[in-house]
Amino acid sequence: MRAEIVLFGDSITEQSFRPGGWGASLADTYSRKADVKVRGYGGYNTRWALFMLHHLFPPLTSVKPAVAATVFFGANDAALLGRTSERQYVPVEEYKENLRTIVHHLKKCSSTMLVILITPPPIDEEGRLKYARSLYGDKAMELPERTNEMTGVYAKQCIEVANELGIPSINLWSKMQETEGWQKKFLSDGLHLTEEGNAIVHEEVVRVFREATWLRPEEMPYDFPHHSVIDGKNPEKAFQQQCSKITEL
Amino acid sequence: MRAEIVLFGDSITEQSFRPGGWGASLADTYSRKADVKVRGYGGYNTRWALFMLHHLFPPLTSVKPAVAATVFFGANDAALLGRTSERQYVPVEEYKENLRTIVHHLKKCSSTMLVILITPPPIDEEGRLKYARSLYGDKAMELPERTNEMTGVYAKQCIEVANELGIPSINLWSKMQETEGWQKKFLSDGLHLTEEGNAIVHEEVVRVFREATWLRPEEMPYDFPHHSVIDGKNPEKAFQQQCSKITEL
Repeated sequence: MRAEIVLFGDSITEQSFRPGGWGASLADTYSRKADVKVRGYGGYNTRWALFMLHHLFPPLTSVKPAVAATVFFGANDAALLGRTSERQYVPVEEYKENLRTIVHHLKKCSSTMLVILITPPPIDEEGRLKYARSLYGDKAMELPERTNEMTGVYAKQCIEVANELGIPSINLWSKMQETEGWQKKFLSDGLHLTEEGNAIVHEEVVRVFREATWLRPEEMPYDFPHHSVIDGKNPEKAFQQQCSKITEL
Repeated sequence: MRAEIVLFGDSITEQSFRPGGWGASLADTYSRKADVKVRGYGGYNTRWALFMLHHLFPPLTSVKPAVAATVFFGANDAALLGRTSERQYVPVEEYKENLRTIVHHLKKCSSTMLVILITPPPIDEEGRLKYARSLYGDKAMELPERTNEMTGVYAKQCIEVANELGIPSINLWSKMQETEGWQKKFLSDGLHLTEEGNAIVHEEVVRVFREATWLRPEEMPYDFPHHSVIDGKNPEKAFQQQCSKITEL
């Protein structure tokens, strides 16, 4: 049975199989080695994520738990009070506590699961306003519903939780801002990712996964033999060698 | 539990999560509705596929079987005897019989599973030779290891098997050749797909899936509520309405 990697998060995870998406790229990186399962829920914050947690990751089950999971929330938690997305706002202390709850639950499902916390990406406030105007014209909000500064507060706390729990993290908020022109280069509407933004996430996730030797794709076993080792005249030999028991035909 | 769609095939399935790939696009089309599981094995023909069949699709299991599967082999079966890929060659009558075995097995796992047979794409012999020269220079084969004509024979028989078994099929070999310049437009090395070639497969698979009303993505239920129906002050309500039982927090 093939290993499974679960991507748990908001729209940035939900959209990760669009062209150039980081989820699809991850599935390709682990081609024939692990399955990548998307559990992305657009618009969700960590408070709402808790309602799904035990359904998505049942603690007692005959199904093998995931070998790794990315937890990628915060973009919606960091929506500002009194602005158009305040429905999604979650106070930063609750955001931290919710992340702890999620990580503890995943570790309870499997103590060996590699859990990574990913911070929200930075916010390009100008890009958000421009996007709102393209949708709503004159009726668009005049003040952005998220600021880069406030999202940075959530990002910092996300990293703190990861450090406190001793698990790896990716500070996407900081990482993206290291590149000049990050606002348009990495973000398509001030919040969601361009193909280049997706490439950063893919690169970072693979980098962190590779630190766990058992998650280095080139060292993970194929479930079935590579075609080059199959003898055309005696194909069952390669299957017998690779598999513990041969399929009954 | 979310529905599952399995993609079973050779390298054209294995590579379907590369940028613009048809598998990734399918995962995006069924976002939050169904999981797309890739079971693509580069270089495999239908004879070798049989060794994996009972492992990949266990007939008696507590795990819910897939709701749909694509079976996409033939490009390797149609390799020519006496040429560089003859190790992969499978006689056309055996190819047909192997397809029947695969479909019967899948239907035995679940009589309601929608199984689609997809023919191999056409072959651009000039593209294959050029590709071989780019890899091996003067040592490259002088005669193509596959011909479009022979692959067409396998494609025709694949459609015949589908008709005989009363299941849907996609004649990719014919479909692609309807467009002028298909050789370079749809094929990157005379055999594998360009992004435009991938788009055709995605379009065709979705078209066939949509003929089964229960596989129309817009009519399939979300596993959890859309964020717009979640009341910020009373979020559990939306979850109670959508889920049969609410998660214990």
